[in-house]
Amino acid sequence: MSLRQVGICLVGVGRAGAVHARNYAFNLRDTRIVAIVDANLNAAKACAGETGAEFYYSDHRDALRVKEVDAVCISTPTFTHARIAIDAAESGKHVFCEKPMALTLKEADEMISAAKRQHVILQIGFMRRFSPEFQAAKRQLAEGAIGKLTLIKSTGRGPGLPPTWACDPRTSIGMLAEVNSHDFDTARWLMESEVERLYAEAEALAVPELKERYEGFYDRSVVVLRFRNKALGVIDGACPAKYGYDARVEILGTEGVMLVGERNNQAVIICTKQRGAYSSSFPSWRDRFREGYLEEDRHFADCIANDKEPLASGEDGRAVLELTLAATKSFKTGEPITLPLE
Amino acid sequence: MSLRQVGICLVGVGRAGAVHARNYAFNLRDTRIVAIVDANLNAAKACAGETGAEFYYSDHRDALRVKEVDAVCISTPTFTHARIAIDAAESGKHVFCEKPMALTLKEADEMISAAKRQHVILQIGFMRRFSPEFQAAKRQLAEGAIGKLTLIKSTGRGPGLPPTWACDPRTSIGMLAEVNSHDFDTARWLMESEVERLYAEAEALAVPELKERYEGFYDRSVVVLRFRNKALGVIDGACPAKYGYDARVEILGTEGVMLVGERNNQAVIICTKQRGAYSSSFPSWRDRFREGYLEEDRHFADCIANDKEPLASGEDGRAVLELTLAATKSFKTGEPITLPLE
Amino acid sequence: MSLRQVGICLVGVGRAGAVHARNYAFNLRDTRIVAIVDANLNAAKACAGETGAEFYYSDHRDALRVKEVDAVCISTPTFTHARIAIDAAESGKHVFCEKPMALTLKEADEMISAAKRQHVILQIGFMRRFSPEFQAAKRQLAEGAIGKLTLIKSTGRGPGLPPTWACDPRTSIGMLAEVNSHDFDTARWLMESEVERLYAEAEALAVPELKERYEGFYDRSVVVLRFRNKALGVIDGACPAKYGYDARVEILGTEGVMLVGERNNQAVIICTKQRGAYSSSFPSWRDRFREGYLEEDRHFADCIANDKEPLASGEDGRAVLELTLAATKSFKTGEPITLPLE
Amino acid sequence: MSLRQVGICLVGVGRAGAVHARNYAFNLRDTRIVAIVDANLNAAKACAGETGAEFYYSDHRDALRVKEVDAVCISTPTFTHARIAIDAAESGKHVFCEKPMALTLKEADEMISAAKRQHVILQIGFMRRFSPEFQAAKRQLAEGAIGKLTLIKSTGRGPGLPPTWACDPRTSIGMLAEVNSHDFDTARWLMESEVERLYAEAEALAVPELKERYEGFYDRSVVVLRFRNKALGVIDGACPAKYGYDARVEILGTEGVMLVGERNNQAVIICTKQRGAYSSSFPSWRDRFREGYLEEDRHFADCIANDKEPLASGEDGRAVLELTLAATKSFKTGEPITLPLE
Repeated sequence: MSLRQVGICLVGVGRAGAVHARNYAFNLRDTRIVAIVDANLNAAKACAGETGAEFYYSDHRDALRVKEVDAVCISTPTFTHARIAIDAAESGKHVFCEKPMALTLKEADEMISAAKRQHVILQIGFMRRFSPEFQAAKRQLAEGAIGKLTLIKSTGRGPGLPPTWACDPRTSIGMLAEVNSHDFDTARWLMESEVERLYAEAEALAVPELKERYEGFYDRSVVVLRFRNKALGVIDGACPAKYGYDARVEILGTEGVMLVGERNNQAVIICTKQRGAYSSSFPSWRDRFREGYLEEDRHFADCIANDKEPLASGEDGRAVLELTLAATKSFKTGEPITLPLE
Repeated sequence: MSLRQVGICLVGVGRAGAVHARNYAFNLRDTRIVAIVDANLNAAKACAGETGAEFYYSDHRDALRVKEVDAVCISTPTFTHARIAIDAAESGKHVFCEKPMALTLKEADEMISAAKRQHVILQIGFMRRFSPEFQAAKRQLAEGAIGKLTLIKSTGRGPGLPPTWACDPRTSIGMLAEVNSHDFDTARWLMESEVERLYAEAEALAVPELKERYEGFYDRSVVVLRFRNKALGVIDGACPAKYGYDARVEILGTEGVMLVGERNNQAVIICTKQRGAYSSSFPSWRDRFREGYLEEDRHFADCIANDKEPLASGEDGRAVLELTLAATKSFKTGEPITLPLE
Repeated sequence: MSLRQVGICLVGVGRAGAVHARNYAFNLRDTRIVAIVDANLNAAKACAGETGAEFYYSDHRDALRVKEVDAVCISTPTFTHARIAIDAAESGKHVFCEKPMALTLKEADEMISAAKRQHVILQIGFMRRFSPEFQAAKRQLAEGAIGKLTLIKSTGRGPGLPPTWACDPRTSIGMLAEVNSHDFDTARWLMESEVERLYAEAEALAVPELKERYEGFYDRSVVVLRFRNKALGVIDGACPAKYGYDARVEILGTEGVMLVGERNNQAVIICTKQRGAYSSSFPSWRDRFREGYLEEDRHFADCIANDKEPLASGEDGRAVLELTLAATKSFKTGEPITLPLE
Repeated sequence: MSLRQVGICLVGVGRAGAVHARNYAFNLRDTRIVAIVDANLNAAKACAGETGAEFYYSDHRDALRVKEVDAVCISTPTFTHARIAIDAAESGKHVFCEKPMALTLKEADEMISAAKRQHVILQIGFMRRFSPEFQAAKRQLAEGAIGKLTLIKSTGRGPGLPPTWACDPRTSIGMLAEVNSHDFDTARWLMESEVERLYAEAEALAVPELKERYEGFYDRSVVVLRFRNKALGVIDGACPAKYGYDARVEILGTEGVMLVGERNNQAVIICTKQRGAYSSSFPSWRDRFREGYLEEDRHFADCIANDKEPLASGEDGRAVLELTLAATKSFKTGEPITLPLE
């Protein structure tokens, strides 16, 4: 109780940034926000006002000079992650970085080395690992609830169009990275094996007109996985899915099947003649993984305070990035891809 | 296979009558429809044409003279049941009678004696007992799935307004009889005990204007039951419920709880932004208990062919009628009623 | 952010007390625990150690002298509520009191007057009102999602035996108060009408042997309600229900039906040959209403800081107590009871 | 009503054969079973006794000489389908053939030509098309319930080990044909487009020891589909899945998502402390598609009586066979396969 609060510098106050801001400022007692950074200085200033942060900047390097900053939480567009993370590590600050970790394996490797060299924590934003239902699933799988695992199917869908930078292949790897990073991570984490081969199909079916503007754009994808332990997997992604945020996982074992996250928002069901039996739409990722985000932020503070290894490490981030790049290569070439990428 | 088909005379070709007609004419191999009776002779003629019945009449007494008629299936308004059933029994015809069995206990007693005296089958239309889910529930309760039974809750709701005669207290006991007969029967059948005391509340809340026209009309009701074995029960009824047909039962035992008929029509679920996750509305009683009606009709033919006691007897019909009358007396007097009625 | 934290004195560190302790100490930033009181001084000491409270006592009057104490949170057995609440109010401390508010209407009235006289907050522990699903239900009902409300059914069941004092009619009103207070409150709150008549049945069916020891003991109950606006209601209670904690509400309107809290813990579903499709058992009340408890504690701190009327007032507590007493009188006399009790 | 019954010759009285036998003999009025054929003459004799068939044989050619036989229903192992179907067609008998239609495209082509030449009906056993939930899904998709279709996922799993002949690549194409034929057919039927490319992975994970005995044996598989209209698809198969029979389909459109067959057997739910909330396991294919099988058999009789085109034609059977062969080639070569196969 009497320990000093961890001082957080938040970089990027967009959608995910706002979630972390609220957690660090209001929902966790052992953290406080010291500085806010955003390319849009007004946004940084407003967020500083709301969260009680003393400092705000448009350039992360200014914030890294603030002594009270112990750690940096990066929620900026993907193409800026590596630069900020490496600068932070080299300033001796701990690093939390949203997924996808980076645009290239080279960037990811440099982020990992910088953190290692400076002995700082590097945690990647795989919040599902901290969500109660995924924790329960992991525990029950370990207890052998469905026998040996043979197949995993993971679905990740977002309701709306991604931001412009995420549609543009120059600044983002696309939906497989922005949305399905979580599914790749879930598959590796629950199956406890690495992927040795994958094959992907992708297409622009919901907003085909974006393909004209951004070569290589797609909004629907399917990836088949073969793990080293011979188990199989399927990931499917869709964005925009329009009907809501949807994250479901099914694992088939030799003794049974497990469904995680099915129909998770059915606490209030209404039935009328006009609409049939219905419940509110699938919640946004904010609501769906509210506890996951909170626990992931708590975990980051705990790793810093107690010098622990984070549950979602830089190596995990790199492995997911590699799968994303391999899947992208597969649907572009029409060929199955063998891992690791050389 | 080589046995003679049971010759059925159908009396009343309204909604329930049409269901039995289809079963006897098309879905069961061991029955055929010989005669159709309806106060509306044109309706009788049309139904005879559809079902291949040789004869049609507006008066049931004419049909009772037809030699090929082995059994009578009565689906007319409640106030006509006793007369037709007694005439049929006295002509040596087996009797299937829709619920509620009759308007008074005296009528019910005469129906039972007539059938006994003439050694004919008397079966009452409690089709839930023949429905696969209720059969499964009964079996699992008997296997001790939830321990000793302590409480039963049974809900019966219909989508639309009952026919005029069923709103008028001169020709019907009202919703507790027309709709909730099934719930009273289910409660007795599953709990394997008789009710010794009940208390009811009822009110006209959905169509209060009908109370002006029909004194004593109500469209919502709740009945609390105390069984002889000390277990408790609740029945609630609503008609019109507007959103659909709804028949659900919950049984609480010392070791667990059982839900029968929850969300039974969810085989196709759709989720859109506008409507949330929804499934088709609760089905009509025709769809909901399609198998129950078919099996009940099959059972009737089987009881006739093999001289068996029907699973839903005249005594069951009488017991349910007594509960209906007691509940009606309770909400009218505002007092709990002790059974049996003298 | 810079406001002084509200200093809490926790009285009673049993099951509900532990939940509030965690919230005030660790999950809310604007509160801190200053003092712990428990008849068992060792328990008070241990809890003080865990929560960082400076003081601990076995007598609440000692704690009321501590200047840093702004408010008292009472989670002791029911028969002690009035004394502690009145002492606290008279010391100028705000009062949060767990349900049931008191043993008699006289006690409740004195608690309300003491708080009024001293201008302190008096909030009663109806945490369902703060739970996201009940909030959503309330909002959707207000939007007319199911038309005019005609019937409410509320089920409250606890898994295990209540503590000894709650089985003894000298120290508790019994299960209708200890468990079903929430259902009575929910019914009033959602239906927005007061009860004008009720009838109850109760029996000791799961642990009949306790009836020998405690005259008047019961473990299953059903209460029928008639509201002033003519709508109907049913509450059923069971403790021990053994299979889990179960809190579900169904509201029938003129246009549709709403189910709140159905199968709420199905985020992980497993299906094996041996067990069929199953999900973890219904959660404990701690898990089921974790957010409700947190938000209720946050609300209490907010009412204190900003001088607001609590959403669950002393008057609400009194109204629920009256219903509990009326239901108890009903099942003891076998008669319907008209409200208000004189 | 007065039409002559269609005379059926049943070839093969194994598991699927027994389902058709019951339908033709007992559940449909317009059909009767004239002859039974099975390699095991005792089995044929027993089935003839049960169904009232006049004739029984061990060789289908004997049955084809019986004049009263109007149509042949083939439920034998896959490798015998072509021979029997062609013989039947050339004897002027209508043909119903269980899936998979045949072992090679050449066989399938010969079956189709024989039926065409002889002007007899050729229907393939895709009973899902006749199941109420799939019919409802098809109708709602046509009504635009989820917008333009972009992705289909179809899961097909059987509880136990397939029969020996179905494990042996010399007599069967394996699980993708024996189990997942239905999924390939469902995908084509619902998406209303043909597959232009697919990629498959398969592995023996549940019973790896069978791979020793039967080269090429697998018990888990995943197939990615790309349709000509650019939509995507995934099929996954598992046999033995142990926990039950599982057939579920999910379709993602531009406006929403549809789930067909989710948790379809939950009419009775039980919750106990030991087992949590559970329902009976997923039903066998017999129960799951009871209505589908009945309606498919009714449809066959109707096509014969009224000279209609069957809803599941020989061409549909051939298309599914082609997909099965292509998927098998894909997982054996590790390459994506472009359709049509030359």
